[in-house]
Amino acid sequence: MAVGKQTDRRGNLTAGEILRDLVGNGPEEVGLKIQGPRGFVAGGIAAGLKKSGAMDLGLIVSDRPAVTAAVTTQNVFCGAPVTVTRERLQASAVTRGVVVNAGCSNVARGEEGLATARAMAQAAGIAAGAGPDALLVASTGVIGVRLPLEKIEAGLPGLVAQTSADGWEAFAHAILTTDLTTKVARRTFKLKVAGKSETVTVLGVCKGSGMIQPNMATMLAFITTDYALTPALAKKALRAANARTLNCVTVDGDTSTSDMAILFANGAALGEAGRKAADAASDAKFERALGEVMEELAKAIARDGEGATRLVTVEVTGAATEKAAHQVAMTIANSPLVKTAIFGNDPNWGRIAAAAGRAGVPFDAAKSEVRLQGAVLLKKGQPQPLDREALIEAMKGQDVVLRFGMGEGKASARVWTCDMTYDYIRINAEYTT
Amino acid sequence: MAVGKQTDRRGNLTAGEILRDLVGNGPEEVGLKIQGPRGFVAGGIAAGLKKSGAMDLGLIVSDRPAVTAAVTTQNVFCGAPVTVTRERLQASAVTRGVVVNAGCSNVARGEEGLATARAMAQAAGIAAGAGPDALLVASTGVIGVRLPLEKIEAGLPGLVAQTSADGWEAFAHAILTTDLTTKVARRTFKLKVAGKSETVTVLGVCKGSGMIQPNMATMLAFITTDYALTPALAKKALRAANARTLNCVTVDGDTSTSDMAILFANGAALGEAGRKAADAASDAKFERALGEVMEELAKAIARDGEGATRLVTVEVTGAATEKAAHQVAMTIANSPLVKTAIFGNDPNWGRIAAAAGRAGVPFDAAKSEVRLQGAVLLKKGQPQPLDREALIEAMKGQDVVLRFGMGEGKASARVWTCDMTYDYIRINAEYTT
Repeated sequence: MAVGKQTDRRGNLTAGEILRDLVGNGPEEVGLKIQGPRGFVAGGIAAGLKKSGAMDLGLIVSDRPAVTAAVTTQNVFCGAPVTVTRERLQASAVTRGVVVNAGCSNVARGEEGLATARAMAQAAGIAAGAGPDALLVASTGVIGVRLPLEKIEAGLPGLVAQTSADGWEAFAHAILTTDLTTKVARRTFKLKVAGKSETVTVLGVCKGSGMIQPNMATMLAFITTDYALTPALAKKALRAANARTLNCVTVDGDTSTSDMAILFANGAALGEAGRKAADAASDAKFERALGEVMEELAKAIARDGEGATRLVTVEVTGAATEKAAHQVAMTIANSPLVKTAIFGNDPNWGRIAAAAGRAGVPFDAAKSEVRLQGAVLLKKGQPQPLDREALIEAMKGQDVVLRFGMGEGKASARVWTCDMTYDYIRINAEYTT
Repeated sequence: MAVGKQTDRRGNLTAGEILRDLVGNGPEEVGLKIQGPRGFVAGGIAAGLKKSGAMDLGLIVSDRPAVTAAVTTQNVFCGAPVTVTRERLQASAVTRGVVVNAGCSNVARGEEGLATARAMAQAAGIAAGAGPDALLVASTGVIGVRLPLEKIEAGLPGLVAQTSADGWEAFAHAILTTDLTTKVARRTFKLKVAGKSETVTVLGVCKGSGMIQPNMATMLAFITTDYALTPALAKKALRAANARTLNCVTVDGDTSTSDMAILFANGAALGEAGRKAADAASDAKFERALGEVMEELAKAIARDGEGATRLVTVEVTGAATEKAAHQVAMTIANSPLVKTAIFGNDPNWGRIAAAAGRAGVPFDAAKSEVRLQGAVLLKKGQPQPLDREALIEAMKGQDVVLRFGMGEGKASARVWTCDMTYDYIRINAEYTT
């Protein structure tokens, strides 16, 4: 299921449309009560970091040690919380959760920033009763500004009191910047543990590309599960799923300084047996659930890209290698000419082919193919007869799927992006400080 | 000198502003009469390829053989005229000029496109009296559409009759797509030939990023000189100048299928002595003039980028290598977040630093520096105190210079781009077919 709770700016989505993607595990997950994995509590409050007064401080805590893995930004300018989270995971692959704030990213603050990030993690760990070194830390928002640690410390007791097993929607709200919707995805699977059927839950919450004042987009994702994993398995599963989900999203090609995806596995669904109740088959089920949750989050981020009106899926097939396919797909997905054409409902295969052609991957243009909404526009490098009016209609207001065939091999890749609109310019040019 | 003749869309430029950059070699070069290098004629006519009825067919012819060198697009989907021009230059490094059309790029037309491009070059060579194999060919405009060869053939006699030694402005018009201004740059230097002081001219004409219907931006540049060069020297000089001028321009990162820059050197200023009158000192003068002409064209393209309101110069210093500096500069220059911030007069050093940080070049963020309009915003990785209002004023309506210091070495690079505006979206989304 995807819970896409609307906040304020996207007036063209009806409640029915928001609910359109809500499928799966029962009515209790729709709306504000989202059931997380066993042993986890979550919550969010307004601690006064956002000028708007909106929620801006969130907490996830496991009642027992959770095996934890993370993937973090490759940006040279990484935020202090990224550094501190990396340090803590290097010291121990077992944590008790994470504290997250929005409204200030604590980036480019030097030693003061590192000290503040450490103090925030420590204060939250103590307040939550988990211990000073037990929590990771993440921040998103304005960069280059001092993190108001005193506001966070003042808010922590209330935040801890407010966390609950179904507090995920509050947490999902607290980590947003200018996202229009909260982004939560959930999968469950059944597992026999000591002769009894148990439900294992994988729950993901993320935020996408939003701007706050003079800053940048940030992707933060937190995935919790009551499945049991070893540190090595957690790392491997997260990296594998990340490579084909969150790493396949682009809004404008600008990689944030603060991106993180963290997986917490506390084994609560497997009881005392823990990893002993798991086997290759249950690992496969978990990996599938994790992949689905992260794919749903990835698509939710692309759909909610700044100024976006459409989710755009770019598929590249017939590549020599997966890496080549991904590179071509990302080049198409980041092309301003392709993204503006989609906004304008223009079935402009020339821009798609030209973007593929400049991706830095060799291929034979005479074997290439372009499909848009299923229609073949270019085949063996030659334009095809086309019902242009019908295709324009098929693009209007619809999610767009475009496919580029390279004709070189059997590898493929799929990435998600959004169209580029006047609102992208408005959000990023007019919201000056 | 830069002749920036206004066409129609940029209402905010006064005639005085257009003339602002006109410096140099005397009043005869301003306006429609531009004196080219000796031995060359140029011209342009409307052959009916553009629906608007604007000029769309241009010709440059040298009255004697000209040593010729070209750099062409790296895009896998290259246009048929690019292939034909490459073939002809492989067969001979001596040509008599080039025929160029706008309104149809002759891209993605397979064998038919190649045949048409060859026929166009051949017909123009015969019409010009230069011979069927003497001219190169370039096209820009809609892709995937048949080139109307019959219109070109019908127009050629009139075009040949219209070419003249001062017909460069007409040529400059005929190669435009949605460019707002013609782009011409000229330098001269003195040279002693057989005891007599001669003026050597280097003249460049180019077009930049414009859209026609369902297509893409194209950069075409034609540089003529009456200096004398060997084929090897022509190639070397063009590549060297191109690397630090036209290859340093980006509007939206979308490399066209039709990009070409061609240098023609007919030696007419050196008379019968030809290369014998040249020496290392005169070669250096020529290379300097060529570099200046191409830099002026590069800046003119960036300034006239689609929807642009400002020329943005991105300088990267303190890099370990020139390649690293160029890569960081291009990443900053292509960042939609940086380009929209400049449109919004937002001194947003965070976006600049974040773009540098994701360029794929390692550096120590704690040594980095950001300057905007001369003001230091980030030093040793730390935000600096800043008179924000003054800086916003210094950005408003001004060309913008931003500098990123890497603190790693002594190499540097400079690239030019423009801001990203509502008009970029309008031009590329609303001008659908």
